[in-house]
Amino acid sequence: MASDMTSNAEAAKSEFDSVAIKFNHDGLIPAIAQQHDSGEVLMMAWMNLTAIQETLATGRVCYWSRSRQSLWRKGESSGQQQKLVEMRLDCDGDTILLLVEQTGVACHTGRRSCFYLAMAQDGTLTERLPVLVSPETLYKK
Amino acid sequence: MASDMTSNAEAAKSEFDSVAIKFNHDGLIPAIAQQHDSGEVLMMAWMNLTAIQETLATGRVCYWSRSRQSLWRKGESSGQQQKLVEMRLDCDGDTILLLVEQTGVACHTGRRSCFYLAMAQDGTLTERLPVLVSPETLYKK
Repeated sequence: MASDMTSNAEAAKSEFDSVAIKFNHDGLIPAIAQQHDSGEVLMMAWMNLTAIQETLATGRVCYWSRSRQSLWRKGESSGQQQKLVEMRLDCDGDTILLLVEQTGVACHTGRRSCFYLAMAQDGTLTERLPVLVSPETLYKK
Repeated sequence: MASDMTSNAEAAKSEFDSVAIKFNHDGLIPAIAQQHDSGEVLMMAWMNLTAIQETLATGRVCYWSRSRQSLWRKGESSGQQQKLVEMRLDCDGDTILLLVEQTGVACHTGRRSCFYLAMAQDGTLTERLPVLVSPETLYKK
């Protein structure tokens, strides 16, 4: 048991006190949300240290809204929350992958994923995913 | 047929001449690479307009290296190329999702994906993915 603990301690390293997380000059790091079981890439948004710590503490994904300059608790107004399954950091510490359980739809357009536009060689865009919920329904109180 | 073409034209819109792609103040946009069939999120890197156009034209993923300040044709030195299956743009035009066929491993550490560190609530990191190829093998000529 003791050797297991030593092994675990060696395999893990503390990051909140270190430089493992590399924030950009605005104190933010991009975070990709992926549905944990289906593998769907749902969206990409930004987190600051407070958003990361709140997400880990509550198990509900919280981003930093660059437009509103405030914490953005995903689903707070739409009900389309993300439950955290696991938070991953990449090899150079400058991107986060959130494995989540997405309630309903991730995109404000009412689509499951924000990545619904396919780009052709000439730059034209074609819609790939259907609207599952009307945005009006999504944001009405 | 005419109505189909009209419908397609309405569903699609040109972006290279428009503001559909929102680059940041450095002229870059984050690009997430995902293995098209398994759903694995492999890495996140950055593209400029030239990298986007080269990727669409050649079918091989090309990024912009912020550290080297040059085009980065993925796999050029390691052989671990990414063949483009489809390029997606998100709802607000500021993130790209690349559906790819990844040759070998995406990560310079020799792991399939760069997102191999799981973050616990206290900030400790634990490795989740095995090294499949030694980095020495990966980059030797």
